[in-house]
Amino acid sequence: MKALGVGLIGTGYMGKCHALAWNGVRQIFGDVPAPQLVYLAEADADMAASRASAFGFRKSTGNWRDLLADPEVDVISITTPNAFHPEMAIAALEAGKHVWCEKPMAPALADAEAMLTAARKTGRTAILGYNYIQNPAIAQIRRLIEDGTIGTVNHVRVEMDEDFMADPEALFYWKSEAASGYGALDDFAVHPLSLLWHLFGHVQEVIADLGKPYADRPVKDGARRAVENHDIASVLLKLEGNISAVLMANRSAWGRKGRIALQIFGSKGSILYDQERMNEFELYTTTGPEATRGFARVLTAPIHPPYDRFIPAPGHGLGFNDLKIIECHQLINAIAGNPSTAVTFEDGLRIERSVHAMAQSYRERRWISV
Amino acid sequence: MKALGVGLIGTGYMGKCHALAWNGVRQIFGDVPAPQLVYLAEADADMAASRASAFGFRKSTGNWRDLLADPEVDVISITTPNAFHPEMAIAALEAGKHVWCEKPMAPALADAEAMLTAARKTGRTAILGYNYIQNPAIAQIRRLIEDGTIGTVNHVRVEMDEDFMADPEALFYWKSEAASGYGALDDFAVHPLSLLWHLFGHVQEVIADLGKPYADRPVKDGARRAVENHDIASVLLKLEGNISAVLMANRSAWGRKGRIALQIFGSKGSILYDQERMNEFELYTTTGPEATRGFARVLTAPIHPPYDRFIPAPGHGLGFNDLKIIECHQLINAIAGNPSTAVTFEDGLRIERSVHAMAQSYRERRWISV
Amino acid sequence: MKALGVGLIGTGYMGKCHALAWNGVRQIFGDVPAPQLVYLAEADADMAASRASAFGFRKSTGNWRDLLADPEVDVISITTPNAFHPEMAIAALEAGKHVWCEKPMAPALADAEAMLTAARKTGRTAILGYNYIQNPAIAQIRRLIEDGTIGTVNHVRVEMDEDFMADPEALFYWKSEAASGYGALDDFAVHPLSLLWHLFGHVQEVIADLGKPYADRPVKDGARRAVENHDIASVLLKLEGNISAVLMANRSAWGRKGRIALQIFGSKGSILYDQERMNEFELYTTTGPEATRGFARVLTAPIHPPYDRFIPAPGHGLGFNDLKIIECHQLINAIAGNPSTAVTFEDGLRIERSVHAMAQSYRERRWISV
Amino acid sequence: MKALGVGLIGTGYMGKCHALAWNGVRQIFGDVPAPQLVYLAEADADMAASRASAFGFRKSTGNWRDLLADPEVDVISITTPNAFHPEMAIAALEAGKHVWCEKPMAPALADAEAMLTAARKTGRTAILGYNYIQNPAIAQIRRLIEDGTIGTVNHVRVEMDEDFMADPEALFYWKSEAASGYGALDDFAVHPLSLLWHLFGHVQEVIADLGKPYADRPVKDGARRAVENHDIASVLLKLEGNISAVLMANRSAWGRKGRIALQIFGSKGSILYDQERMNEFELYTTTGPEATRGFARVLTAPIHPPYDRFIPAPGHGLGFNDLKIIECHQLINAIAGNPSTAVTFEDGLRIERSVHAMAQSYRERRWISV
Repeated sequence: MKALGVGLIGTGYMGKCHALAWNGVRQIFGDVPAPQLVYLAEADADMAASRASAFGFRKSTGNWRDLLADPEVDVISITTPNAFHPEMAIAALEAGKHVWCEKPMAPALADAEAMLTAARKTGRTAILGYNYIQNPAIAQIRRLIEDGTIGTVNHVRVEMDEDFMADPEALFYWKSEAASGYGALDDFAVHPLSLLWHLFGHVQEVIADLGKPYADRPVKDGARRAVENHDIASVLLKLEGNISAVLMANRSAWGRKGRIALQIFGSKGSILYDQERMNEFELYTTTGPEATRGFARVLTAPIHPPYDRFIPAPGHGLGFNDLKIIECHQLINAIAGNPSTAVTFEDGLRIERSVHAMAQSYRERRWISV
Repeated sequence: MKALGVGLIGTGYMGKCHALAWNGVRQIFGDVPAPQLVYLAEADADMAASRASAFGFRKSTGNWRDLLADPEVDVISITTPNAFHPEMAIAALEAGKHVWCEKPMAPALADAEAMLTAARKTGRTAILGYNYIQNPAIAQIRRLIEDGTIGTVNHVRVEMDEDFMADPEALFYWKSEAASGYGALDDFAVHPLSLLWHLFGHVQEVIADLGKPYADRPVKDGARRAVENHDIASVLLKLEGNISAVLMANRSAWGRKGRIALQIFGSKGSILYDQERMNEFELYTTTGPEATRGFARVLTAPIHPPYDRFIPAPGHGLGFNDLKIIECHQLINAIAGNPSTAVTFEDGLRIERSVHAMAQSYRERRWISV
Repeated sequence: MKALGVGLIGTGYMGKCHALAWNGVRQIFGDVPAPQLVYLAEADADMAASRASAFGFRKSTGNWRDLLADPEVDVISITTPNAFHPEMAIAALEAGKHVWCEKPMAPALADAEAMLTAARKTGRTAILGYNYIQNPAIAQIRRLIEDGTIGTVNHVRVEMDEDFMADPEALFYWKSEAASGYGALDDFAVHPLSLLWHLFGHVQEVIADLGKPYADRPVKDGARRAVENHDIASVLLKLEGNISAVLMANRSAWGRKGRIALQIFGSKGSILYDQERMNEFELYTTTGPEATRGFARVLTAPIHPPYDRFIPAPGHGLGFNDLKIIECHQLINAIAGNPSTAVTFEDGLRIERSVHAMAQSYRERRWISV
Repeated sequence: MKALGVGLIGTGYMGKCHALAWNGVRQIFGDVPAPQLVYLAEADADMAASRASAFGFRKSTGNWRDLLADPEVDVISITTPNAFHPEMAIAALEAGKHVWCEKPMAPALADAEAMLTAARKTGRTAILGYNYIQNPAIAQIRRLIEDGTIGTVNHVRVEMDEDFMADPEALFYWKSEAASGYGALDDFAVHPLSLLWHLFGHVQEVIADLGKPYADRPVKDGARRAVENHDIASVLLKLEGNISAVLMANRSAWGRKGRIALQIFGSKGSILYDQERMNEFELYTTTGPEATRGFARVLTAPIHPPYDRFIPAPGHGLGFNDLKIIECHQLINAIAGNPSTAVTFEDGLRIERSVHAMAQSYRERRWISV
């Protein structure tokens, strides 16, 4: 495989995270050519230049379309606000580039569908930035489900909670606008849904309740503006294989910083996981003497690949950014035609369909099939 | 107040627990007369005699109606299977006895209503055995909600999980029969509902999903019998004051032994609690320097009454049986006409109405008002 | 066995705890006659009468020697300050009573020796109030050590920490006087030493360092008084069987309320325990697939006797006072000539010898054999 | 500042970790020139070439001395076994290179002293690879100590435990040879000592006990070979400022994978930390209402620099390798003459002196001043 030429659009939180991943993937994994950091785009050309220097990109531009025309660019990371994803992703695909687009695909379902159509038509590799599923702990949990360690799964609960919207006196900003989406459903629920998909397959049927903890928020002049979407979502779900599930998302949950908590119950055992302690999971099984059964807290270790590519000693801990390196490796695998656990536009669209079904189920107060 | 004469019907799990409470309440609290353990009834007269000796009751009988006629008996503890509650409670009330009946009131709503009618008509004190609300940790949590420490509560999650029905190869027994009730809803959900009621008031509206992890279970001759109710319940709820809530109950949750986990989110903080670690709770508030904010794990202590009546040192731990002693003290308070946090038949009926509404919402696949 | 007549001297923290134990032991265990609460002594006669009423004792007195002469009294609980233990225990033994004396035996080693001599001479049962060893979790840990589950133990750490002496501005009181003893060594270290003895046998050799966090403390008139003993003790120990151990005790450890933490390392596994979460322990073993090994958090349950005598359901939790009931049951076993895990004066003296050796090792700055 | 040219000797665990740090430091921090990965040395020239390609170094060699002569190399990372450190570090310094040497300096104290002499003589920057002190959580703990949040510290406990030597049937290898050093003291204790130094200053006086859990281990032919050093170390220490401390290290502690646990007790509060959960710490203070005091679990966040350079969202988690990037940044700061928290050869020598004092205190069974 030849080295990939990389273009990056956007240099915020996820932009830097993508840059780190492209920069580190060869050193960590060793089995892929070192990506060439070719071209970085940021709305402001000066900032683009400065970030290109910091991130190690050779060229920079204030116009993202410049990346499309560059023959050195093979793959484009799209890390801009969600509303820009469709235009950029479709243009990139049509220019023959592979695409690594941050989640979710788009606020409107029709746009997401157009993105998938473009991916199919061009035959380029197109994946979404679902990094949490790439944790070696999650890979081990998936193995434990697949190999029957906890028997047949019959019930799942997943929670995603942070507190960046928890302060009722924080100034109104775009995340509270209806134009940004449903709120917790788009902003958060897609992550736990990616985990549910990765571990159990797709969602079949949903009914949601949405909560608006604060009716309005202050704006700069001392007035207040009505909040237009919902910071809290609670959803009953049916998964494939008759698994009942509950999904809870709350971006106004004081004290929660990066919680994505899984509880998985099977006929022979249970598994617990919390992203705030991403280097461990808990397993209960019915093996061994009854007097010593309990949830075992397992620390991730070289025995849980690809942890071994990062550190040869157990229990020393990966970080959030490391997950993006694993995801980048999966993307390169996908581009090379190898098996990959990256989330394709096809699977991503299924995730977003279920989000829209949840919103509909709330509006219509009834169960909705996805 | 004169000493109460106590009758006890039933000597199983809860029977012994009531006996311990009646026996200990005077020593622990000091401010109530020592109850007189008068009369114990158990279906088998010999066992009744043996248990009366062990538990310290003066008299015993194989016929529970003997207690009704005994003028020394002022109050009757009813700890038999649920199906017997209505007949016994109504008879006891009509005989002029106060009643301490284990929860839930009755499998059928009409029977529970008749119990409340009897309590109202006779004017006797009639309470239900909801012990978890009596934990000093819960009392402290209630104070933190009432005094505004966590601001206005906007979202609550509560889980109750054990694993006594988790083994799919355990023999079919009466808990899987439809006649015993809905399953997790009656057997479990009433406990978290008592906590929700105690902390936030009554449930307004519900929609439930029920799960049956195992379609059938073995019977003795090697055949299998279909399971008739549901071991898993997941419910979206609206509480008073526009609080959105999720209630989850699972009696087939491998590894969970006595979990009743609360997550309470407010505009200024959050509270966490888990009955498996009943001597602590966690509190997050927005006070103090941001760099040191986190969930504080608070161990219960003499500053959290009535912990001080049990132990003068902090962090030494109460046990499950101690909660029943507190409940017994609340019952005596109620009989004496003093303020009491015991759950009356009136409040208990509201709890059971919400359980029936949940079952209906599952059957009809729609939201139901309670 | 005939019912024991009980005398109780002292009605503070431990006095009430003994009363609760005598009152509850028959109901909980069923296999011993109900103790008769005969005679209660407290320095103030009025208070004695009031406590006798509250605790259920038939008679009361302001003179503890009255108990010695009472033929109805078979056994005497001594729960007064440590300095009174020798006189009372020896007098009680010489009056033919069994003795249940709170720990430690006496501030001076010679007094403790005299107590043992009296016990041997009279042949009465004489035990010390070491309750923590009676926890069903500790009993299970002992079984796991004995049955080889964690192989040969080679290293142990034990910590006992509370914070009642942590405030440097709290008024000077008797616990800081040299006359009360060494400080953390007598006040605290005896508890972890009882656990080490119970699990591993006696201490062979020690070297201690003592710490005085605050040189002086305020007295009422605004002046300050020098602290005369040490709130912190750190000790290296050799146990039987070439086990190296570390004992740490700190009664000025802010935030610790009732911590007694054990870490036990063996050739095939490890065990963790913390008294602040007394209803659980953690076990790591080298069995099972390496990818799922971790410390299993085991909740105590009916399978861990005598938990089953208190509650038939797992994970529901015993309390601190329940341990004293188990200890009382062991005392009755000992009086009846049955096997017992209660700490005899003989074993208790060995514990106190090791405390004095620790103090000597600190003064002389060298290892001391016990 | 001009870009540093980097040489790397050794490509094992720490070699890769250094390579990752040099590769990532510019992207993460942005305020330093991108290091140039110039020259990689590994004993085997082929492996050197392969690793140079994987790690992104331009040149490779089988002879580490080639790096000394290369004018493009400004700084050399030394990640070989400890016995090679002195020769390599001294040669590098004398060749005018800055040195980043993995800890500990050398098995023999005289060699470590010679390393310091070389650093002083050449005036080059020479630091040791103590990464754990670079954790943003540790930086915050240091601020809390310095700003008086927990008052005057009076007692500290630190534990470092892993289990890579726990299996008694694992084949004898060089870590059990006396030539490799004392065992847990060199291999482990230097890490907690770096934390003690970073937070409290240098050790004054020590007494140690060493434990040998297994007298011998198997060798290949089925025979057994005597173990020559000690896998367990327990040490009483006096720190600056009259702080009493206990250091415990165990490399045969089943179930521990990367535990470095700190307990810090002060006159106004306490702090807890465990490297196995490196993205959090716990703080107890005496502020706020007594009824809600408890250890607060604080998740690291952008407010704890330099966490913000990695991730702009709280609670998302750094990894072990990220600490090395911070350390690399501190090294570049030191080379540039800016303030730095890196551990110089001067401080490192003090750490190693205390290790040798511990070993002496064990041999001579007495307290030793450092």
